Amino acid sequence: MCEPCKDITVSFAAATLLAERDWLILTHQYPDGDTLGSAFALCRALQLTGRKARVLCADEIPAKYDYLTAPARADEVTGAHIVAVDVADTKLLGGAVEALYADRVDLCIDHHLSNTRYASRLLLQDCSAAAMLVRQVIAAMGVSLDPQLAEALYTGISTDTGCFKYSNTTALTHQMAAELMEAGARTDMINREMFDIKSRARIELERLALAAMQFHFDDRVAVMPITLKMIRDAGAVENDMEGLPPIPRQVEGVWVGVTLREKAEGGFKVSFRTGKHANASDIAARLGGGGHAAAAGCTINKPLSEAIALVLETVACSIGVSL
Amino acid sequence: MCEPCKDITVSFAAATLLAERDWLILTHQYPDGDTLGSAFALCRALQLTGRKARVLCADEIPAKYDYLTAPARADEVTGAHIVAVDVADTKLLGGAVEALYADRVDLCIDHHLSNTRYASRLLLQDCSAAAMLVRQVIAAMGVSLDPQLAEALYTGISTDTGCFKYSNTTALTHQMAAELMEAGARTDMINREMFDIKSRARIELERLALAAMQFHFDDRVAVMPITLKMIRDAGAVENDMEGLPPIPRQVEGVWVGVTLREKAEGGFKVSFRTGKHANASDIAARLGGGGHAAAAGCTINKPLSEAIALVLETVACSIGVSL
Repeated sequence: MCEPCKDITVSFAAATLLAERDWLILTHQYPDGDTLGSAFALCRALQLTGRKARVLCADEIPAKYDYLTAPARADEVTGAHIVAVDVADTKLLGGAVEALYADRVDLCIDHHLSNTRYASRLLLQDCSAAAMLVRQVIAAMGVSLDPQLAEALYTGISTDTGCFKYSNTTALTHQMAAELMEAGARTDMINREMFDIKSRARIELERLALAAMQFHFDDRVAVMPITLKMIRDAGAVENDMEGLPPIPRQVEGVWVGVTLREKAEGGFKVSFRTGKHANASDIAARLGGGGHAAAAGCTINKPLSEAIALVLETVACSIGVSL
Repeated sequence: MCEPCKDITVSFAAATLLAERDWLILTHQYPDGDTLGSAFALCRALQLTGRKARVLCADEIPAKYDYLTAPARADEVTGAHIVAVDVADTKLLGGAVEALYADRVDLCIDHHLSNTRYASRLLLQDCSAAAMLVRQVIAAMGVSLDPQLAEALYTGISTDTGCFKYSNTTALTHQMAAELMEAGARTDMINREMFDIKSRARIELERLALAAMQFHFDDRVAVMPITLKMIRDAGAVENDMEGLPPIPRQVEGVWVGVTLREKAEGGFKVSFRTGKHANASDIAARLGGGGHAAAAGCTINKPLSEAIALVLETVACSIGVSL
């Protein structure tokens, strides 16, 4: 497919999906509730219309998503038709999935305005969660909600809005949640799994990371390093790592919350969280990354102290304070 | 008013309110977002219909509710007409408010099925928040939502459902949230104030308490002590103490979460949190306390090690494990 990426509507996306007999559905690596909820909802909707579909993720899917994955059917597919959900950049497909499919994505359904337009067709809207777009596509496909679809979609919406707490939550988000509850989603089970339960290793990791949190610029900027040593000392595994980036900005008076997570191969994955006083996307873009106004990220391949210095310098430029 | 308490409908409650020229609105003591949001919404709705109204609370209202209290008008009222919101029992009015008004409440709007039916007229429904009932009463009064009303009502709904996370959340809860967002409620500011922001002292206190958390009975029981020394070392004040009891049961696999908070005068205030595998109310009752099935408490006037031993013995009896 050599044509440039074309922006399409919800109904065109639905027609595109229904036009083929089978679909491989790609999620992003380090999968979260939105990419998984969107993918498994789309998979089920395609199957309910008589298509074959399967979800492919570069990483193992954490056990807490068993209620999504266990009832799902993984069909044999040709691999000729590929849709990616909640994937802003082919780099985020990860490992072998990226190598095999990066230049072959027919359709992308995404809500990141930073989407790199890698797919032949792109359904992009700035809504709270990719699952909100998938919900509209499923409706346009003529598929009625059932409890399983409702739970997958609710998972995406609930996780990407911090259970309706983040500023990306809109009236439409709540309207969809109401509809998904009416369709039978077990929202209390989902929310406890997604938001409440923490492993002992995770709690220990939070404890270590909180102890290392630094404050700068009159306590307007909080920086929380998460090093490989902390992860090792806590006995934490990948599953324990979700939901750490919001923590620094939860401190009273903090405008910019920064989390630096050390990568196995060295360097840091850096997350920014901001409110009305700063723009995470602007900060991340200055460091070669991207994301949303309130939540964005980048990678810095430097030792911790240099990475923090670079972050602070960049944040200072972005929010206009002097070092 | 010697007549027995009469159950009334939403429209009758609206008519009752509109029938008088002024109203004193009572909240419960240790006020939370639902009693305050309900009271300030009702106060504004009455004022918008040309009535006089003021809110009365036995305790000082925490500063985080300034966005509710600062724009509110407190009229001179006769005290001849009294409505209580989210108050299940006159004992919960607290101090002087209870002494002055307990036997004079004309109307009660409440969602606790345990309501003691102390008011002449009672509007009682088992919904997520008293604010959901107040929202319906305001509509029946013919008052349109404005941003200030919407924020007060959203505060009640959001706080009483743990930001739509608890099992008391329904499709109607989300529908009302959507409507309140459309009416202009600044929900991200409210949720950040209510749920996210923690002082540095609070974070330090959590860190110290987590480090001291103990696990027993194959990690089914987690016990988190909060001593006066920890509170002192963290520099924490009373406002920093809210929301600690749920923490131990958030650990994966824990059936019973126990928090022991040392009192200034010695001894411990003990909180129990349980899910489907145990009953907090039963555990607390065995120690002379009480509460709900999932959240209950008691007081133990012993040194920490003895208090923990007594708690473990009692929990073991209640859940039927051997020490």
